[in-house]
Order: sequence, then C-alpha cells, then structure tokens
Amino acid sequence: MLLQMLDYLGVAVFAVTGGIMASRKQLDFIAFLFFATLTGIGGGTLRDLLLGVPVFWVANEAYLLVCLVVSILVWFFADWIETLSKPLRWADAVGIAAYSVMGAAKALTVGDTILVAVLMGVSTATFGGVIRDTIAGEPTSIVKSEIYVSAAFAGAGSYVLLVQLGLPQVLCMVAAGLVALVLRGGAIQRGWTLPGYRGRTR
Amino acid sequence: MLLQMLDYLGVAVFAVTGGIMASRKQLDFIAFLFFATLTGIGGGTLRDLLLGVPVFWVANEAYLLVCLVVSILVWFFADWIETLSKPLRWADAVGIAAYSVMGAAKALTVGDTILVAVLMGVSTATFGGVIRDTIAGEPTSIVKSEIYVSAAFAGAGSYVLLVQLGLPQVLCMVAAGLVALVLRGGAIQRGWTLPGYRGRTR
Amino acid sequence: MLLQMLDYLGVAVFAVTGGIMASRKQLDFIAFLFFATLTGIGGGTLRDLLLGVPVFWVANEAYLLVCLVVSILVWFFADWIETLSKPLRWADAVGIAAYSVMGAAKALTVGDTILVAVLMGVSTATFGGVIRDTIAGEPTSIVKSEIYVSAAFAGAGSYVLLVQLGLPQVLCMVAAGLVALVLRGGAIQRGWTLPGYRGRTR
Repeated sequence: MLLQMLDYLGVAVFAVTGGIMASRKQLDFIAFLFFATLTGIGGGTLRDLLLGVPVFWVANEAYLLVCLVVSILVWFFADWIETLSKPLRWADAVGIAAYSVMGAAKALTVGDTILVAVLMGVSTATFGGVIRDTIAGEPTSIVKSEIYVSAAFAGAGSYVLLVQLGLPQVLCMVAAGLVALVLRGGAIQRGWTLPGYRGRTR
Repeated sequence: MLLQMLDYLGVAVFAVTGGIMASRKQLDFIAFLFFATLTGIGGGTLRDLLLGVPVFWVANEAYLLVCLVVSILVWFFADWIETLSKPLRWADAVGIAAYSVMGAAKALTVGDTILVAVLMGVSTATFGGVIRDTIAGEPTSIVKSEIYVSAAFAGAGSYVLLVQLGLPQVLCMVAAGLVALVLRGGAIQRGWTLPGYRGRTR
Repeated sequence: MLLQMLDYLGVAVFAVTGGIMASRKQLDFIAFLFFATLTGIGGGTLRDLLLGVPVFWVANEAYLLVCLVVSILVWFFADWIETLSKPLRWADAVGIAAYSVMGAAKALTVGDTILVAVLMGVSTATFGGVIRDTIAGEPTSIVKSEIYVSAAFAGAGSYVLLVQLGLPQVLCMVAAGLVALVLRGGAIQRGWTLPGYRGRTR
C-alpha cells in the first residue's frame, strides 16, 4: 500500500521534471506527454525488467494516467512552476528519494539479496533522469561534481540497513527517503559535494 | 500475416536510416551492419521486452537477414540514395508509420489495455531513431520543434480507435499508417508543427 | 566453468574502464562505483534481457562484489594506471574480447541460432562501453573510423565458426578471444582500420 503510494509519487515527480524539460525546450504538447511519461516511468521500467517481473505500467495503466495529468498541469502551469526555486532539480530530488527506497523495497520483496537491492534502488532512481537528459541533449547530472548518485545510494542503503534491523517498513521508508532527500537537497541548495578524485591525471 | 509484413517493413526502413547514418559518418562495413541492425530492430526489441514476450529477432532470425541485406544495398547505393530528397527522414517516416501501428497492434494482441497499446506504439516507433541518433552523437528528432512523436502518437492512437470501432484489421492498419505518414511527411516537406510551449521561461 | 571465468573477466575489465572514466571526470567515490558497475555489468545485462534468462548479477551478486573491489582499486591506483599506455582503451579491448565470445557462447547455450549468437556477442561486447561514453557525454567509439565493432564481430563470429567445426570449447574461446583482442589491439597501437564508406555525400 505505502509501496504503491511511493511508486505513484516517484512517477509523478519524475513526470514533472520531464514536463519542465519539454517546456524549456518549447516543445509541443505531445512531446510534453512523451517526455513526462518517459521520465516518469523510466526508472521503474528498468527495475522491473531487471527483476524479471511484469512491467508495472503494463500491468496497471493508472500510472500512465498520472503522467497524462501531470503533463496537462505542467503545460498550463510551467510558467508558475519556473518562478519556484530550481523546480526541476527539487522535483528530481523527491523522485530520487522515492525511487531509491521503492527500488530497493521491490527487490527485497521478490527475494533478492541486499547488494542487489541497493543497486536496484540506485539505478532505478537515477535512470529516469539520465534518459530525460540524454534524449534532451543535456549533460547528465551524474557527471557533475555534486551529490547525486550518492543520495540515491544513501537512500537505498539506509532502507536496506533499517529493514535488516527489523524496524517497521513504514518507518524504514520514511527515514531512508528523508536521508536521500536531505543529501540531495543539501547539494542543490548548499552545493554539498563528496571529495572527488584528484589525481595527477588530466 | 499483415502484422508480420508490417514488422519486416518497419525493420527494413529503419535499417535503411541506420545505414545512411553510417555512410554519412563514413564508417566501415561492419559498423554499417551494426547501425542498420541496431536501428532496424531497436524499437521492436524494446516493445517485446516491455510486453514480456520473446524478442522477435531471437525467435526468428529472418529479421537479421533483412538487416544484412539492407546494409549491403545501402553500402553500394548510398550515393544514389542521397540524390533523393531527404532520404533518411523519409525512410524514418515510413518506419514510424509502420512501427506505431505494429507496436499498438502487438500490445492489443497480448491483451493489454488501449492506453498501454498507444504508448507501446509511440515508444517503439521512436526508439530506433533515438538510439541511432544518440550513438551517432546527433541531436534526437524528439527535441526539434517538428511533428515527430506526434505522428507516432496519431498513428498508434488512430489504430487503437479504429480497432475499437470494429473495423477490419487490414483497414485499421492501412488507415492509421497513412495518418502517421501524412503527418510526418507534412512536417518533412512543409515544416508542419504543432503549437509549442511558449512561456516566459528561458 | 570457463564461461564463468570469462564472465568475471569481462565484468572486471569493463569495470576498470568505468572507473578510469570516473577518475578522468574527477567524480566522487560513489560515482566511481556507479560508473564501474554500470560499465561492468551493462553488456551482460542487455544479453540476458534479450535472451530472456534471469539477469546474471541478480542471480549471483558476486559480480557486484567484483565491481566494488575494482572501484576501490581504481580509486587508489588510477594515477598509476594512467602511467600505462592507453589503459582505458586496452582494458576496453580485453572486455570486448571476453564479452564477444561470452555473449555468443551464452546464446548458443540457450539454443539460439548462429546468427543470433553472433549479434548477441557483438551487442553485449559493445553495449557497456556505449552507455559508459553516452552517460559521460563522450563520443562513442562506434562512430570513430577504427576497428571496434569489427573486433567484436570477428570474436563472436570466429567463436561460432569454431564451435560449428566441433573443436573443444576451451580452444574455441581462447582462439576467438585472441582474434578479437589482436584486431582491436592493432587498431589501438597501429591505427588499423577497415576501408570506410567513401561516397560523394558529405
């Protein structure tokens, strides 16, 4: 139940980032719909293909309706959204938090090991944004010297850890989601970074 | 039967666009083969993975032979092909028409809902071209302010609609394919666009 | 057994190339881990999805440990690695050799035809490098006028051919792997190319 809520949340906020990207590129409405849907369902689609379970939006088309509604809203309110501070990056941050936990949780549900669960959380949290940026021809966030993959890693890792400690699932989800969100939020607002590789090379 | 014909057509014309891309990059023959095959089978491969059915060219290698033959033909006749008007974009247009209908039809065949069928048509019609352009380092057609995703959407949508109306499948396919082709053709020849997002942003 | 060794080798050397890319971009350790893992398991993941078999690292997480260990080693020794001659390209060459054979072998194992096996070898040998370069925003090796796809093609093709001749599997693997490695090595050290397409176009 909570798992499903988190899934809808992840889809919706990633769809928002796709819609914002389309509005910045001044695309038409169908392209809006395409970008929002692609970004919204991309991460979860990869997760389900890797886990070998039916793709979630093929099984339940309500997720596609979420993307449709988000596209319409962003189409009409993108101007207002852009008056907010860094809306694309914050929506992306919420999406990373939701999907890093959700990806790890679904992997544990189907009986995979903790290492696989962490990687599933990380890859599905970052995949939607990566394809959004790649198709839009923008540099992906992964190669910026910011906490990005690390936030997804922290979210998925702390969820798996808390579950191992036997805490109630709701608590694990909320706590792990907040860990990811705070880390990514710190990167967005304060420019938090981890020490990067500094060699003689280059 | 007609479904299969459409599948071969989609593979062949997308393979042509891959071959033309390789000739423009002046690559060697194996790279020709690679680009033609990747573009030819890319969309259908994504479709089958998402639907959870066996990948079509793994089940039937005749599709790979089509890509091989197309590669050889493009290798020898690319110069002549380039004398035609906008050959890559027109072949791509035929591919979008064939695959948008084919993707939707296969999704309906395995029992998916109409919304899923439309999305399957759109994503598989555009995916081959997206990976072709991404790997070649060219901007994808999706971010140009042209009717592109919209043509795939119109093709898949009108197919699903016509099938719901109970018309014979052959008629639905031909009509829906023409809708997509005319829309995309108008974009290529006349520069047809849909109104893009025009906000204060950017 | 040997198949598994080759799989670990392919994962490890591709992970090295991912780590080197991350060090050149001066990313943090988690991004190192991400790039190394993505590049290490990318090709095999595609192969398993296409073949419709369980994804290898979901079934056996030892592969993820390999990527973790490689990431740590590259993090500490990237400076020293860069003193070697063209380390990223040579590690990539070993990976192509290992994976072109491995991809073809696994396809034959699950009963696919020889044409499918060759394509499986080619695509899984090149896919890890393609996503590494795409996400890093670097041009992919495929569009350079070098023997790259061709080396993978020669490796997969000669493996399938030798197996058809009834030679022992170990011999087929070693010989085919060497074919790919020598071809790619020649391209790296001597600039070997195949004749590219030279038309009037462009």
